[in-house]
Amino acid sequence: MCAAAIAELAERGFDRFSVPDVAQRVGVNKTSIYRRWPTREALVVDALQMTLDRVNAPPRTGSLRGDLCALASAVAAFLASPVGAGVVRVLFADEAADELRKVARAAWQNEASIALSILNDAIVRGELPDAGRASRLLFTLAGAILHRVIVERQAADEDFIKDTVDLLLDGVLRHRPDRA
Amino acid sequence: MCAAAIAELAERGFDRFSVPDVAQRVGVNKTSIYRRWPTREALVVDALQMTLDRVNAPPRTGSLRGDLCALASAVAAFLASPVGAGVVRVLFADEAADELRKVARAAWQNEASIALSILNDAIVRGELPDAGRASRLLFTLAGAILHRVIVERQAADEDFIKDTVDLLLDGVLRHRPDRA
Repeated sequence: MCAAAIAELAERGFDRFSVPDVAQRVGVNKTSIYRRWPTREALVVDALQMTLDRVNAPPRTGSLRGDLCALASAVAAFLASPVGAGVVRVLFADEAADELRKVARAAWQNEASIALSILNDAIVRGELPDAGRASRLLFTLAGAILHRVIVERQAADEDFIKDTVDLLLDGVLRHRPDRA
Repeated sequence: MCAAAIAELAERGFDRFSVPDVAQRVGVNKTSIYRRWPTREALVVDALQMTLDRVNAPPRTGSLRGDLCALASAVAAFLASPVGAGVVRVLFADEAADELRKVARAAWQNEASIALSILNDAIVRGELPDAGRASRLLFTLAGAILHRVIVERQAADEDFIKDTVDLLLDGVLRHRPDRA
């Protein structure tokens, strides 16, 4: 049921999400859904939470640059997946209830906490000099991917990810021409 | 009429935007709106375009860092304004028609073209060594602001903007502790 709910959410968005449509997709009567989930919000909350428990951290590469690229690829793949599309559609939906928005935001922050552990490792290795800007770095990376996928409507592919990670680690003013 | 349409859009989002609501807000009969704008999409397209023509570039500060901060403040103020909220709600709306999405995207790209002229000036001044990463820099800045305002639900205030511009210009690995 949760997989069907996620598929509906990704295809139609939350504003047009309906329990009868999910019932039809699964081939059951809508009353058997309403028995367990009294509202469409309750169904979406459960569906998102079950799916998100299965999101895993990417394997470590041994370097901060490599780890950030792997993480960015995971976020990009997540955004391209039905559940990721569902989370984004809830985050930006006009009608999403507060509880639902909280789940969507928690999903996004779950990604962020995986990311923070990557930065902590880099600080321990002495590879990252400054813990203070860690969360700003991550949110900026996430924002760059969101902008790429949703506003530019372009794939967050390997080149894009490498350029963005280089930008965030090196800055524009520190650009080395040999890496252009 | 356009101001009322923008106000409706910002308050209710595009999915729940309706011509009768705009008519009620202005105190006219809905048929007099439909005479000029046959669909709600047509009304929103006109309203966004008229308002966006009035968006101006921020004054130049003489330095790239200053210009980027001013630009980021203008984008943040735009996102916080009714028309900016309207543009974002159309960009992320489930139901927005293609033409409407194009206008919203054009609005966003209008901001981007102002921004690119800032970068060109910096290149001419010799302040920015690399034109190649200019658009990636700008879209990353825009993405960081979008993430801040829409995902984190925090204000893109002066401290946030300064931290983000410093991050993009200097990178994490080039961080100078005295500016922490």
